[in-house]
Amino acid sequence: MAPGLARKYEINADMGEGFGRWKMGPDEELMPLIDAANIACGFHAGDPSIMLKTIRLCKKHGVKAGAHPGLQDLFGFGRRKIEVDTGDMYAMILYQVGALKAMLDAEGVELSHIKPHGELFFYMQRDKAIMKAVLDACATFKVPVYACQNPEQEAMCEEMGIPFQGEVYVDVDYSPEGKLVPVSQSQQVNPELCRTRAVGATMTDSGHDINGSDFSFGFKGKPFSICLHSDVPTVLENARAVRRVVDEANRVRFPSE
Amino acid sequence: MAPGLARKYEINADMGEGFGRWKMGPDEELMPLIDAANIACGFHAGDPSIMLKTIRLCKKHGVKAGAHPGLQDLFGFGRRKIEVDTGDMYAMILYQVGALKAMLDAEGVELSHIKPHGELFFYMQRDKAIMKAVLDACATFKVPVYACQNPEQEAMCEEMGIPFQGEVYVDVDYSPEGKLVPVSQSQQVNPELCRTRAVGATMTDSGHDINGSDFSFGFKGKPFSICLHSDVPTVLENARAVRRVVDEANRVRFPSE
Amino acid sequence: MAPGLARKYEINADMGEGFGRWKMGPDEELMPLIDAANIACGFHAGDPSIMLKTIRLCKKHGVKAGAHPGLQDLFGFGRRKIEVDTGDMYAMILYQVGALKAMLDAEGVELSHIKPHGELFFYMQRDKAIMKAVLDACATFKVPVYACQNPEQEAMCEEMGIPFQGEVYVDVDYSPEGKLVPVSQSQQVNPELCRTRAVGATMTDSGHDINGSDFSFGFKGKPFSICLHSDVPTVLENARAVRRVVDEANRVRFPSE
Amino acid sequence: MAPGLARKYEINADMGEGFGRWKMGPDEELMPLIDAANIACGFHAGDPSIMLKTIRLCKKHGVKAGAHPGLQDLFGFGRRKIEVDTGDMYAMILYQVGALKAMLDAEGVELSHIKPHGELFFYMQRDKAIMKAVLDACATFKVPVYACQNPEQEAMCEEMGIPFQGEVYVDVDYSPEGKLVPVSQSQQVNPELCRTRAVGATMTDSGHDINGSDFSFGFKGKPFSICLHSDVPTVLENARAVRRVVDEANRVRFPSE
Repeated sequence: MAPGLARKYEINADMGEGFGRWKMGPDEELMPLIDAANIACGFHAGDPSIMLKTIRLCKKHGVKAGAHPGLQDLFGFGRRKIEVDTGDMYAMILYQVGALKAMLDAEGVELSHIKPHGELFFYMQRDKAIMKAVLDACATFKVPVYACQNPEQEAMCEEMGIPFQGEVYVDVDYSPEGKLVPVSQSQQVNPELCRTRAVGATMTDSGHDINGSDFSFGFKGKPFSICLHSDVPTVLENARAVRRVVDEANRVRFPSE
Repeated sequence: MAPGLARKYEINADMGEGFGRWKMGPDEELMPLIDAANIACGFHAGDPSIMLKTIRLCKKHGVKAGAHPGLQDLFGFGRRKIEVDTGDMYAMILYQVGALKAMLDAEGVELSHIKPHGELFFYMQRDKAIMKAVLDACATFKVPVYACQNPEQEAMCEEMGIPFQGEVYVDVDYSPEGKLVPVSQSQQVNPELCRTRAVGATMTDSGHDINGSDFSFGFKGKPFSICLHSDVPTVLENARAVRRVVDEANRVRFPSE
Repeated sequence: MAPGLARKYEINADMGEGFGRWKMGPDEELMPLIDAANIACGFHAGDPSIMLKTIRLCKKHGVKAGAHPGLQDLFGFGRRKIEVDTGDMYAMILYQVGALKAMLDAEGVELSHIKPHGELFFYMQRDKAIMKAVLDACATFKVPVYACQNPEQEAMCEEMGIPFQGEVYVDVDYSPEGKLVPVSQSQQVNPELCRTRAVGATMTDSGHDINGSDFSFGFKGKPFSICLHSDVPTVLENARAVRRVVDEANRVRFPSE
Repeated sequence: MAPGLARKYEINADMGEGFGRWKMGPDEELMPLIDAANIACGFHAGDPSIMLKTIRLCKKHGVKAGAHPGLQDLFGFGRRKIEVDTGDMYAMILYQVGALKAMLDAEGVELSHIKPHGELFFYMQRDKAIMKAVLDACATFKVPVYACQNPEQEAMCEEMGIPFQGEVYVDVDYSPEGKLVPVSQSQQVNPELCRTRAVGATMTDSGHDINGSDFSFGFKGKPFSICLHSDVPTVLENARAVRRVVDEANRVRFPSE
């Protein structure tokens, strides 16, 4: 099994999404509740000092440190569509992940994984050439790439020899096609809804789409990582609720880990 | 001898200093004339695509590829004084050099050296805490750091176990204190002046300050690297003139290299 | 007739498209050859100092000074597709044109017109809500808005009481639908081709599309402005050729102006 | 009396200091408690959409809308020293204030005043040529310029025919030389301290420096504006406390206003 892949259920969250004096999300309080942090790399959020601070926070709490590259768009927080040439995209991913990697090296921490942020994730879903460019860059780092319900990306990763880490979201909706609905278009969540969804995913491998229809995630017993958005107002309560579900599920399903 | 250090006289030049559609300096024509390129890392100039293109140009011409980090100042081309907290500075250097390093890894090219750009160089000369912060970051990469006539930096590098590469400039002036005069305040050069200065440096270990007084560089036979500014209008002619001097000096002084 | 509208054939060109130390286009040489300058406002190119310098150049040569707002994209020179919320777009246009307007006020020069740049122009063609947002912002300044072959924009301007200035391009191609083809996809031009196209436009109100088919511009004797791209390598020769055509056509068609 | 100058005691506060999705300060709650807003113009904070939103908030609450230009430094929030050429500075101030002015025009609101932000304020105190460049740009807009305890600026304004609005700060310290101490170096305030200081300023024209020594502001009965930092954690409580003092003082001192 490739290093960095989840060996039991995990929780990941986006971290270090402030900029300069501006803050986003309760990183300090959230860190002890998660297994893996996706650290913004300065393009959609984050700056060198915040990145370093976040790495040190990961180190302190024994949380895996991954890169969270995004589109170059501080104003839009990487959530706006921006046309990027595939050559530019390849270079931009190397740039961002490399910047983080050097800080991890300086701190003696392993780069755990790479998870594309926001619109970059959706861009990869829409555009195969962009997906290829991003994964080409990721391949340099030999760590798992995260994605949620994206069989095409899973297939391309396999073809390219890149470990793929499947994810589940419990604080945004799923479309009838099994695709993630952007935060801004999803219903607001509360800890109970997150808990219920986490139980469904871990215990029955299933979720509900926006129409209420049941669907299967298709993990078939393989561990996955549950993503929580750190900028949702109730994220700490959501994280505590999901943490309990995940710990209990791990006790039952992956007792030896 | 530490890898990356000059084993004979060399020429280095700043490269990749465009941004987006804007160009600066004749990189393609200059590359065959030099030994080591200092590649801008996106803070004072350069963008991810230009960085990658410049690395490929180095590869093609067998030129050493070094990082050229600068202050975060596209508008001022990294030549304006900007107050930077030492913690921020440490993180900014890791960020820039790490970004370049990942591209070098992707291209299978070694990071050869690190050379601080413009006002960052002068900031280090003025402020010991900044010098320490920059060198702390550089130490992560275990490659030589370049600097011109900076005994304090040389001493601090030695203390920290960082290889130090001495330099000579032939296209800007030296103050009576033996310090570099910024480009904007130096007399305009021509290829003949560059040639004369290069001969002086390689053959007699000496130069002239702005008052015309003779001074010794103090290399005492050790090889050094001659820096040429790629944004000087006559840079190609300057480079050809200095190339001839350097090749001839190497034939005489370092025949076995 | 609204102030700012062309009273005879004119030539306009984009100006001030450098950034910091980076240059783009031979502004000094081109200025004496044109009637109206479209001055970049800092979002796709230009910075406050370049804007002011360009205004002073306009003043010196008696050239009309217009605003050339663009998408917020220095890296892509405002030529990449970027998704912009209509409210954001409205505010971004006010911001850019207002910034230029204050400098014009300081220099005692009138704001002559507004001309959307690059992808912003195409965005307006594609998306009516964006066109409305841009024109709503333009309406604040009570000056003509330029556009080339865009009957929808002409109609919306009329509805909103905004003077509309029709344009012709002689250094890019036209599609069979009469739309402008982006610079990067157009054939390379030379002065002779520009001259021929300028003669066709001024003398017979007609042009040729990329298939060689004849089409009518539909100006029916009304004066228009011919746009030249200042970043085309031969722009100075193009401008001299078109200048002669325009002067001659004005002598014949608008002798009293 | 020049329009825009305070005709009785007033409270001003910095507003619109978020960027994109990032927030700073409780603008909505603070707006009803103040008389004049200093609106960030996009260089140290603020973006076009936040600027417009803040103007609309001013309009709704009948609060004067002023420009709050700063150094071009989002990362450092305009609080770091940055070397700026005087010509660049002049253009940067025109740019920022002009951008805001156009939005005010669009909303039918008057530009009330200009107040330099953070390090720009200190730069003007340190460097007369910079002060001159900033005031030269301000002169274009014919509105009062705010400053706290800066006799040199007051004198230069008078010489240049620019109305000058004196200020008092009650949430930062004063040095023994009567100069403002930066927020980061001042003691933390509470509403009671703000109240006491406001009473001292309005009732006895006096304050205390960091050594506890009494000094006179020298307003001699002229009304002034009290500034509150909107990013101080207790700003709303501070504002309520100072509001009561100011209203009571106005009732006594300026009953006809």
